[in-house]
Amino acid sequence: MYAPGDVRVEEREDAKIIEPTDAVIRVSAACICGSDLWLYRGIEALNGPTPMGHEYIGVVEQVGDQVRNVKVGDFVVGSFVASDNTCEICQAGYQSRCIHNVMMGSEGTQAELARIPLADGTLVATPGEPDKDLIPSLLAASDVLGTGWFAAVAAEAGPGKTIAVVGDGAVGLSAVLAAKQLGAERIIAFSRHPERQALAREFGATDIVEERGDAGAAKIKELTGGYGAHGVVEAVGTQESMWQAINSARAGGYVGYVGVTHGVQLDGLNLFFTGVHLHGGPAPVRRFLPELIRLIWDRTIDPGKVFDLTLPLDEAAEGYKAMDERRATKVLLTL
Amino acid sequence: MYAPGDVRVEEREDAKIIEPTDAVIRVSAACICGSDLWLYRGIEALNGPTPMGHEYIGVVEQVGDQVRNVKVGDFVVGSFVASDNTCEICQAGYQSRCIHNVMMGSEGTQAELARIPLADGTLVATPGEPDKDLIPSLLAASDVLGTGWFAAVAAEAGPGKTIAVVGDGAVGLSAVLAAKQLGAERIIAFSRHPERQALAREFGATDIVEERGDAGAAKIKELTGGYGAHGVVEAVGTQESMWQAINSARAGGYVGYVGVTHGVQLDGLNLFFTGVHLHGGPAPVRRFLPELIRLIWDRTIDPGKVFDLTLPLDEAAEGYKAMDERRATKVLLTL
Repeated sequence: MYAPGDVRVEEREDAKIIEPTDAVIRVSAACICGSDLWLYRGIEALNGPTPMGHEYIGVVEQVGDQVRNVKVGDFVVGSFVASDNTCEICQAGYQSRCIHNVMMGSEGTQAELARIPLADGTLVATPGEPDKDLIPSLLAASDVLGTGWFAAVAAEAGPGKTIAVVGDGAVGLSAVLAAKQLGAERIIAFSRHPERQALAREFGATDIVEERGDAGAAKIKELTGGYGAHGVVEAVGTQESMWQAINSARAGGYVGYVGVTHGVQLDGLNLFFTGVHLHGGPAPVRRFLPELIRLIWDRTIDPGKVFDLTLPLDEAAEGYKAMDERRATKVLLTL
Repeated sequence: MYAPGDVRVEEREDAKIIEPTDAVIRVSAACICGSDLWLYRGIEALNGPTPMGHEYIGVVEQVGDQVRNVKVGDFVVGSFVASDNTCEICQAGYQSRCIHNVMMGSEGTQAELARIPLADGTLVATPGEPDKDLIPSLLAASDVLGTGWFAAVAAEAGPGKTIAVVGDGAVGLSAVLAAKQLGAERIIAFSRHPERQALAREFGATDIVEERGDAGAAKIKELTGGYGAHGVVEAVGTQESMWQAINSARAGGYVGYVGVTHGVQLDGLNLFFTGVHLHGGPAPVRRFLPELIRLIWDRTIDPGKVFDLTLPLDEAAEGYKAMDERRATKVLLTL
């Protein structure tokens, strides 16, 4: 990305091993993330031309001397944060905040080859070469599914629970799927888009609410006997969406927020009196990858349905444009 | 309280049964809360002369027709929020946010008699008439101990955990005691006051840190191998103390905040990248009362030590003054 709105595909030097803990993978598929749009729209500052992309699946092409857990030829899925998976933070399940974490956006995985730092801690090999139809779902596991899953876990989705989901993008829809898998009894999706409503229902939503903001939160209270949802997923990241989520939860309820927050200020006293549990941040996708890969491999879940536009990498610019204009929810880039 | 700094003790009409679910108690002891100081200092607005006090223990003098769980003559402890203890919120352990909650501050328990709404859900009888030396501890259970306990639970204090406590007032000190009882391995108290440091150590603190704000949080990181505490209690309620608490926790750690927040704005993006669990609000003291009463009755804990000034109710004005001037941590009012 050269500037907001200016995405180009160009020849760059091949990714290579720098540290002995690195791997280089040949990317099978990559995608464009909702968070990439913050740069595309000029809301986040860009420091000159920047390689893009942090979601990826592919085949290991080369490994550093100290890599033990993956080998050349393995088909692998990684998360958008490279992590050692051995520090206390990783061991507690917060690999996205590993003390040695490397944000993959700094490497740029919308490319034929990508360097994966801390390969042993970051990459998870699939049981074998995946069937072609599993590619979108495995790619989804790399970020949006793992993020939605984390949000649903943070919202304490489980049997008997009513879970509301703010945000009908790929992460929000993935959170609906996750809440369903985790056993939630009732799943309320906020959405005004007929196609996204339909996918939300297919993923497990039992109710759709079109109201937003305070009216949306009031609707959740109305649907839950005045109490509010047991848990709420926030997958947008704006001031309105954060309060919509917090105010949709009951006192003592759980809000899992994973939308990268922009311009959000939380008034402490208002938050205090909601009495909610608030937990979120960059999702520790690595924690969930083995289970997500298994569910996809077994064809229990089909999260790849969030991709509604597939383009060759060469046409990445059009992919950004389509997502920016909301013509596409999530774009898959093939290589 | 007639105005900031103007507290008077005067004859008022006796408290009486209004609803059939009410009880009237003869107050044995009451106290002045740190949160009363927000009004005393003019930081919170006062709407004309206001009865004060929301912490209380005493003997049931009269019960309404529908009261079943307590009877005349029972010695009882209640929390600062009256709750039905039957709604879904109460049943989930969040009695302070009961859908029928009544804040006891609106009744005013710094008085000889006090009306307790929703008596069945609010009051817990002790096993009998308490020995005189247990009075301060039972009174502490009514608010500060229950609040500190909730904060320590929200901070996930338990075996193997390092817990930091921001705030060395009665609630913070009670949180130290709670963290110890809950089995925390290491308890770090922030304090600059020699007497409070000594009580913190007596209650179970293993380390004292005198630094505050960013320097305080940096010190916790230094003491915990660079990671931060597993859990942190916030018992002050200012912008500085909230961030001191959040930044003292490790990624994925737990912050239990119970200081009534004043002027706090949490920047969403900063909070997002901390990855902490944030949970707090008005403590559901009622959840913990049966256990706290048992621990006090058995003389396992002695939380009454947080009271360092005892005055007759007639001298309440001097009690406020002493707390305002930090000559006293916590004032007990006898009747």
